[in-house]
Amino acid sequence: MTLVNHCFRLASRPVGLPRRSDWTYGAEPVREPGEGEILVEVLYISLDPAMRGWMNEGKSYVPPVEIGAVMRAYGAGRVLSSRHPGSAPGDLVTGAFGVQEYATFPGKGVTKVDPRLAPLPVYLSVLGPTGMTAYFGLLDTGQLKAGDTVVVSSAAGAVGMVVGQIAKLKGCRAVGIAGGPRKCRFIVEELGFDAAIDYRAEDVKEALRRHCPQGLDIYFDNVGGDILDAALTRLARGARVVICGAVSQYNRTEPVQGPANYLALLVQRASMKGMVVLDYADRFAEAAREMAGWMAAGKLRSREDIVGGLETFPDALLKLFRGENRGKLLLAVARARAEGPAG
Amino acid sequence: MTLVNHCFRLASRPVGLPRRSDWTYGAEPVREPGEGEILVEVLYISLDPAMRGWMNEGKSYVPPVEIGAVMRAYGAGRVLSSRHPGSAPGDLVTGAFGVQEYATFPGKGVTKVDPRLAPLPVYLSVLGPTGMTAYFGLLDTGQLKAGDTVVVSSAAGAVGMVVGQIAKLKGCRAVGIAGGPRKCRFIVEELGFDAAIDYRAEDVKEALRRHCPQGLDIYFDNVGGDILDAALTRLARGARVVICGAVSQYNRTEPVQGPANYLALLVQRASMKGMVVLDYADRFAEAAREMAGWMAAGKLRSREDIVGGLETFPDALLKLFRGENRGKLLLAVARARAEGPAG
Repeated sequence: MTLVNHCFRLASRPVGLPRRSDWTYGAEPVREPGEGEILVEVLYISLDPAMRGWMNEGKSYVPPVEIGAVMRAYGAGRVLSSRHPGSAPGDLVTGAFGVQEYATFPGKGVTKVDPRLAPLPVYLSVLGPTGMTAYFGLLDTGQLKAGDTVVVSSAAGAVGMVVGQIAKLKGCRAVGIAGGPRKCRFIVEELGFDAAIDYRAEDVKEALRRHCPQGLDIYFDNVGGDILDAALTRLARGARVVICGAVSQYNRTEPVQGPANYLALLVQRASMKGMVVLDYADRFAEAAREMAGWMAAGKLRSREDIVGGLETFPDALLKLFRGENRGKLLLAVARARAEGPAG
Repeated sequence: MTLVNHCFRLASRPVGLPRRSDWTYGAEPVREPGEGEILVEVLYISLDPAMRGWMNEGKSYVPPVEIGAVMRAYGAGRVLSSRHPGSAPGDLVTGAFGVQEYATFPGKGVTKVDPRLAPLPVYLSVLGPTGMTAYFGLLDTGQLKAGDTVVVSSAAGAVGMVVGQIAKLKGCRAVGIAGGPRKCRFIVEELGFDAAIDYRAEDVKEALRRHCPQGLDIYFDNVGGDILDAALTRLARGARVVICGAVSQYNRTEPVQGPANYLALLVQRASMKGMVVLDYADRFAEAAREMAGWMAAGKLRSREDIVGGLETFPDALLKLFRGENRGKLLLAVARARAEGPAG
């Protein structure tokens, strides 16, 4: 039996929000694994704002996706066959499998995960790259100290929800900025943030003044734009601004909006530092063990927002830019095979 | 004999470039020193871009100059009389004496300087706050390491000229950005920078690519605006951007131009950090000793651009914003008494 692989390949570099026509959706025979390779059935695909950046030409922290290549994405799946000593059929693994049903992949490029410890989607969430981003961004880049006031934007998103919870775990005050009352209730009532600011309904600057009377010790930024500028006006002395992303800016056709209040860094002797989670790859296992321990102890919750199936990818990705997801947005591949045009 | 003090008092908060009418220039009797005070004859007044910020209302790293108060300025002078045990008539001292001829000043607020070690103006330059800013900004905030490529803007100015020279002393490559061929020759031929970029005549981004093929490890920014944005495009991995000032922005009537390329901090895992030299006050003496040693050994040069006299202050200050000074801009008070309307 020859397996058929449905996949999205990049067709053109988007201007502004990506459109369905920026990819081609096709069916191809699955390539048998060569020496050192494994064949993975992709079950969940991680949808991340960073994917927008990967579609652009030019130098960044990873090379752009080439035109004609399968769209890059992190995912989780099951090993179907293996020519690598580290993997066996039936293993559950995560890796950069791309937006497709089946990945013929280097065996050394995957991480084996234990489904008894946590459900598979959690390995793309709290125990995956976004959880790691929160963990290392806050503890290493942000140099979190007990007693800090931590503010995070996109607080109901995959990274933000973990940032606030780790801050609470470490004896800090956590304030989240999110869009809409549902998300605000979610982070306070379900995740235990001290306060939420609804940027759609409130003056963020004024709300930060009210919720953080001593100023912000850490501002963990996922959005850029006006919210970054508002946060800069409320920095405490020696504050650390962690630049993790700038989802408000990724689809702009005008130049990026630079933070006009950046001179607050001088006034407050503060720093603004960028981070890329890949740099911490050799510490992921250690961090995941600690995070899994917190989850088992009921101190850290994961939340996934799972949509499907594969063929809905272009629209599903836009949910991130419309702010429609709560928790980690994942694409379940299966529904495509069951219901989609590829079925 | 009652001494008469000529001084500039702040009359209004400027919009854009300060005008002469933003100060009143008057003559007042000198107040005799009270217990713990000294009377200082001010000889040189330090003119600094930061003074523009002190004229604005609102919170900054120091309180604003009050309307009606003597304009704040750092200066050097001679003690005429003393009611403080640490000072005696004839002592040469530096302190925040203001834009005036005579300062009745707390004795504990001054630093005694040794004219045998260096001429008095040097204590407002390499051995003064601007030299200290370069020293601590580069070594502490910027975490300079041997082999780094260091780029500094306003390179022919008071801070920039010292930044480049310390970088060279510490085994680094120093590239300066300055306006016009005279300044560019000055920093390369007289101060020993490896290269100069004339931002008035060259494409800064392209010139940075040529002069710093491995990227910038430290960018020491005194200007903000387009030059900061150009530097951000050329950061090396792990680069440190030191935010010392933003002279291009201080007189804008529009909002500050935020650095549109700030996401380079993420791509390059770089940091941008503000510094205020006052934070290092308890280490000034130690740094000044080291800097004086370098000067004595011929490894570090000071350059002052001395204009006068006191009554020319409003226009002299503008030289900083027109980029007319080479080296540390100082106002010699004396000429005012000799030639000016106050004579």
